[in-house]
Amino acid sequence: MPGSEFNIIQTFFTDLARSLSDWQGNSDIVLGIGDDCAIITPPDSQQLVVSIDTLISGVHFPEQTSPEAVAHKALAVNLSDLAAMGAEPAWFTLALTLPKADESWLTSFSSVLFKLAEEFNISLIGGDTTRGKLAITIQVAGYVPQGRALLRSGARAGDIIALTGPLGAASIGLDIVLGKNHNTYQCLSDKQQQAALLALNYPSPKIKEGLLLRDYAHAVLDLSDGLLSDLGHILKAGAVGANVFLEQLPLAESLQCLELEQAWERALTGGDDYQLCFTLDPEKWQQLKNIAPQFTAIGVITDTHELRLLNSSGELFQPRNGGYNHFE
Amino acid sequence: MPGSEFNIIQTFFTDLARSLSDWQGNSDIVLGIGDDCAIITPPDSQQLVVSIDTLISGVHFPEQTSPEAVAHKALAVNLSDLAAMGAEPAWFTLALTLPKADESWLTSFSSVLFKLAEEFNISLIGGDTTRGKLAITIQVAGYVPQGRALLRSGARAGDIIALTGPLGAASIGLDIVLGKNHNTYQCLSDKQQQAALLALNYPSPKIKEGLLLRDYAHAVLDLSDGLLSDLGHILKAGAVGANVFLEQLPLAESLQCLELEQAWERALTGGDDYQLCFTLDPEKWQQLKNIAPQFTAIGVITDTHELRLLNSSGELFQPRNGGYNHFE
Repeated sequence: MPGSEFNIIQTFFTDLARSLSDWQGNSDIVLGIGDDCAIITPPDSQQLVVSIDTLISGVHFPEQTSPEAVAHKALAVNLSDLAAMGAEPAWFTLALTLPKADESWLTSFSSVLFKLAEEFNISLIGGDTTRGKLAITIQVAGYVPQGRALLRSGARAGDIIALTGPLGAASIGLDIVLGKNHNTYQCLSDKQQQAALLALNYPSPKIKEGLLLRDYAHAVLDLSDGLLSDLGHILKAGAVGANVFLEQLPLAESLQCLELEQAWERALTGGDDYQLCFTLDPEKWQQLKNIAPQFTAIGVITDTHELRLLNSSGELFQPRNGGYNHFE
Repeated sequence: MPGSEFNIIQTFFTDLARSLSDWQGNSDIVLGIGDDCAIITPPDSQQLVVSIDTLISGVHFPEQTSPEAVAHKALAVNLSDLAAMGAEPAWFTLALTLPKADESWLTSFSSVLFKLAEEFNISLIGGDTTRGKLAITIQVAGYVPQGRALLRSGARAGDIIALTGPLGAASIGLDIVLGKNHNTYQCLSDKQQQAALLALNYPSPKIKEGLLLRDYAHAVLDLSDGLLSDLGHILKAGAVGANVFLEQLPLAESLQCLELEQAWERALTGGDDYQLCFTLDPEKWQQLKNIAPQFTAIGVITDTHELRLLNSSGELFQPRNGGYNHFE
């Protein structure tokens, strides 16, 4: 009776999800894929944090992107949202829209999806497969001790603004994939170009960093649309402003073909970096940077309600475009 | 800085979600839309049940379907999954893919979405808006007391098979929308045709019925792909068979233009009815039918591993096609 739609889910996801779940031994998952709903017993005194994101072929990734990269990115960007809340990954659901039931594509997609799920100890508990243009919607859930979730609100005047790592590599990776703006990557070695492509296609969710920040940060979010746009959310949520010091921006090695101002522009407006941006007390920053030397301070929160980009002479810098926007 | 994508979410969903949430006073929702994730404190000694479903324009509903009907159906089919588990609705997330940011469409869509959410006391806690062909992915979550969720497994030989209500109306509604198979609806009055369209576009999730069944049923699922296909899942999960008595099938009034065998065919294979199908002890059935006279027994579970469709002379009936399948 069950037709091919169910067979796809069965073959590519149910069995894999079960073996992963058995391996992980996540005792909160009472029932996974296979019934009308999954059943979860949330651990005592933990809050649940959830997020949903859709990636569409041709909008969020170029149409020629490999199934491996699509799988990695779809789960990674959702894990990144959990990281930004300081949450431990718990489980996810997958709604997959496919033009056709392509076994080879599904095998590649599912192998990387489950590899990443294993790495971050997150279980697939439910799914839906439909026919249409390639689109992947994942909802993730994670746990955080009662009252300990990190929010984007909470930035205070005087806070240091910091990042978990360098910016701009993914935007160069996108130039390479699309074969445009050759000048942004023509000076890079093959290996360096490969690194930019990896940054675009295989972003690394900052789960560990998010857990660390629970003890330090006032406000946190992950950078998906570009620093300018995303930092704007922190400022709006906290009703504060910021001075960002351009010379302090951690520039990815992939930006080295660019003039300094162009590199700043990329670091400020390039999307898909998935670093965490956070604010914290200056004293806490002194402690944190000893533990996490790869983190970089880039500015301070002010009470001006303005986002000012300053060079070392204190001059204002105006980038040519804002963050990425799907409807612009 | 935030572009129009964020404005859409802000205008049409965030504000509405907040006012609904305030009105509902659902104290488990600590933080709704607006941060990287929502935060929930699940109630003590309750399990969480979750399900995700995608509806795609042209696949799951005709492209000319109104935004009101799309909104209702997208949430209703997910609520129906909660009903099938015997769960109380709690919260949902929405991933909406739209060809363009059409304010009038969004106003209509959101008004019906929130109307249904209010009716079933479920809060929108997160979302994502992307550009592409119209598609709606909703993940719902509900609560059920520890160990009380209703599963599709659990049917036992000797169980009565029953339904919460009549079958087949939605399939006639689809004929009307598509203007095909005129003979299936030409004898219906305008009012009766309207009823068939309502069954298709505004299915009513059987949440109350699901809660009632917690005390009665061995196995439950909701009928989305057609009785034959979906009952097949119950049989497979329980490693049992069934005898279904065709004369007992509750036929929707919308099927009255059809010969009896055609009407059975529709009742057996028509999709989108969203009744619950369940099995239970014969003694329990005697109790339940006094409380819920609209429920109908349609057959019995057997130990044969076969699904047999029998007319009143005990002859086997073979429908021409199985359940609906997106990839067939």
